[in-house]
Amino acid sequence: MAQAGDYRILHEADLRDYLAGVPDLNALLGGDPAVWPITEVGDGNLNLVFIVKGAKGGVAVKQALPYVRLVGESWPLPLSRAHYEFLALSRQAELAPGLVPALLHHNEALALTVMELLEPHIIMRKGMVAATQYPGFVDDITTFMARTPFFTSDLARSAAEKKQGIAAFAGNHALCKITEDLIFTDPYRVAEQNRWTAPYLDALAAELRDNMELHVAVSRLKLKFMASPEALLHGDLHTGSIMVTERQMRVIDPEFAFYGPMGFDIGAVLANLLMAYFASAGHERAPGDRQAFEGWVLETVEKVWAEFARKFLDLWRAGATGDAYPASLFAGETGAARLEAERQAYMQRLFADAVGFAAAKTIRRIFGLAHNIDFELIEDSKKRAICEARAVRLARAMMLETAAFRTVADVTGTARKLRDWMPELSD
Amino acid sequence: MAQAGDYRILHEADLRDYLAGVPDLNALLGGDPAVWPITEVGDGNLNLVFIVKGAKGGVAVKQALPYVRLVGESWPLPLSRAHYEFLALSRQAELAPGLVPALLHHNEALALTVMELLEPHIIMRKGMVAATQYPGFVDDITTFMARTPFFTSDLARSAAEKKQGIAAFAGNHALCKITEDLIFTDPYRVAEQNRWTAPYLDALAAELRDNMELHVAVSRLKLKFMASPEALLHGDLHTGSIMVTERQMRVIDPEFAFYGPMGFDIGAVLANLLMAYFASAGHERAPGDRQAFEGWVLETVEKVWAEFARKFLDLWRAGATGDAYPASLFAGETGAARLEAERQAYMQRLFADAVGFAAAKTIRRIFGLAHNIDFELIEDSKKRAICEARAVRLARAMMLETAAFRTVADVTGTARKLRDWMPELSD
Repeated sequence: MAQAGDYRILHEADLRDYLAGVPDLNALLGGDPAVWPITEVGDGNLNLVFIVKGAKGGVAVKQALPYVRLVGESWPLPLSRAHYEFLALSRQAELAPGLVPALLHHNEALALTVMELLEPHIIMRKGMVAATQYPGFVDDITTFMARTPFFTSDLARSAAEKKQGIAAFAGNHALCKITEDLIFTDPYRVAEQNRWTAPYLDALAAELRDNMELHVAVSRLKLKFMASPEALLHGDLHTGSIMVTERQMRVIDPEFAFYGPMGFDIGAVLANLLMAYFASAGHERAPGDRQAFEGWVLETVEKVWAEFARKFLDLWRAGATGDAYPASLFAGETGAARLEAERQAYMQRLFADAVGFAAAKTIRRIFGLAHNIDFELIEDSKKRAICEARAVRLARAMMLETAAFRTVADVTGTARKLRDWMPELSD
Repeated sequence: MAQAGDYRILHEADLRDYLAGVPDLNALLGGDPAVWPITEVGDGNLNLVFIVKGAKGGVAVKQALPYVRLVGESWPLPLSRAHYEFLALSRQAELAPGLVPALLHHNEALALTVMELLEPHIIMRKGMVAATQYPGFVDDITTFMARTPFFTSDLARSAAEKKQGIAAFAGNHALCKITEDLIFTDPYRVAEQNRWTAPYLDALAAELRDNMELHVAVSRLKLKFMASPEALLHGDLHTGSIMVTERQMRVIDPEFAFYGPMGFDIGAVLANLLMAYFASAGHERAPGDRQAFEGWVLETVEKVWAEFARKFLDLWRAGATGDAYPASLFAGETGAARLEAERQAYMQRLFADAVGFAAAKTIRRIFGLAHNIDFELIEDSKKRAICEARAVRLARAMMLETAAFRTVADVTGTARKLRDWMPELSD
């Protein structure tokens, strides 16, 4: 764990000296440290991120601040999150090789991690605002989505190993609390940090505060988030935590990692793709000029679930070495058939969880503290509100009538119908 | 944690010297240590238990052995369980004052705990074999059953406190593993340690091994046991872990304590009362001579659930200081009404969990390694098998058709109908 006494925020000059003083990093960067360009590029909500380039190579440096960057020193946040991020990255690198940035160096006391520089990768969310399609995305993200939870779950681990994993991440509760407050609570009550596209969404915001069916539904999701440690989650798996080229993908920033319900990460991916879909109309320069992109997004939503489910089931069929559903209870043909039916039921339950969590992830991005550039970059606020209202209508249905969404086609079908729906806006 | 190097098994002479050397205990016992009567009374499956009496008072001493007492040195078991038992007893004493034995002394290295001597309390199971009624039982056990889980759950604790609690007990996985194997796995497969009243129950035992619906149902319960840390459980809350007089009750032996699904403890209490009910016919000396006792048992089953639910709900209504179902989302009359409906739904879900776990707890006592004196003391094995088959018929229905048992009266009603049912036995 970081020790408060040793911590200091590394500004550019400090950081240069520090990196130059670590032989492996100095060698990797190469050339004269005095002329390494160092750029602060952090556009997330929490940390400092630097890109450092040397004569031979480059690195990305992430340092946790003792507060929430988006808000400032008034909102302290423990440095230990850098420890959990490092731990999660290490596990993810083992379980889903090549799908997270390579770790080069970690300093617990400084809450600092040095990783490979991902070039020419960009944040996927930015690419989607520009209507870029990523043909390699589905295969990579579903490998990550299937392997990291499966291999940390009761399906693959002994109960003892699983409990050790849960305990190892139990201290990351301050980061979980951010999710608990900002996703599962604040959008549904008066909270200073809430904001939305006013005045157009005022009536919708009021409904979120007043509809007790939504409050029950989101409270059930919150309880599931807090008390269902099914597997090691990324914890913040949106398109801003994914870096892409057209062929490659890397998942970054797992500082929210903890043992939680698998559906939370799955829902995050689905929700952020769906938000990109609904935002797309707001980025049109001519009617229909993003049609191919939008078709690709919905197809991607469908394939993400289908490929995730296929890969997860394949892992389960091939490597169920955990204490859940012991092989000895499902011997023979009858046993195999009954277990396969149970696997399908398990996936159906997981899909329902993902639908509910996707709804919560969508609503928080439109009414809570942290918004998405998908919507935020739509300058015309009325146009933005229309896009957001469509996303909210889908999310509301997914939260209140979760069971009605039996398949991912039910989700994309509803999304498609809402593409040109004109909401009534407040004024 | 116990350190292996300092541990030794304390036999009588050693124990006498040890207790004499602890000033508080020496004073409490009083008189000449050389003449303190020391009796080993452990009749549980795991530990040594001594009763020591001095001129002034008595104590109970419990020492963990590095193996399972019931089986021997071939089945090692970590001494750390004494640490978790001490931790659980301490928490239970805070949360349910007066309902667990007072702690007098603990030595981690020796895996040894000294507690108040409970006199004239006896193990409740023994009393029930003798058809003794305990008028004070319902009130005491339901206070314990409501307060210990409520105050360690997400309803009463912050998510951070809850996660700390989970982590504090995560190391007790070896004891959880005993439950996972002996309750949720072995009775449903060929396992060397299984035994049952043969030949009469051979066909039933074969059905447990062959019925894949049972295997799915018990595997779902096992997964819930492993991956639903709702609250701090006792973990072994049967009538052999309860000491009683007609007016008083103490819960002992929480070495299986961990954070798990609340329904597991509730199901344990219900199942053990129901087993006492079905065993009662086997202890009759004349037809109907235990009728009043049997009526009391079924009434107790009903009251245990009803009073538990009432007390748990009252705690929730009065003290929901946890992060689940935040008060701010349920303001006003509409909010209060909707939250109350959700509380009822929560209890209905909890009851279903308890029904399933009660079924698993019953089946393991009839087909697994560890049996109950309720049945075991029925000397006529055919008569015993008949009683056991009735209990199994109820348990089988509770496991396969859990949702059909909507209320506790559905359980006791079915039990009453099975009281004189004559099963077909194998021969």
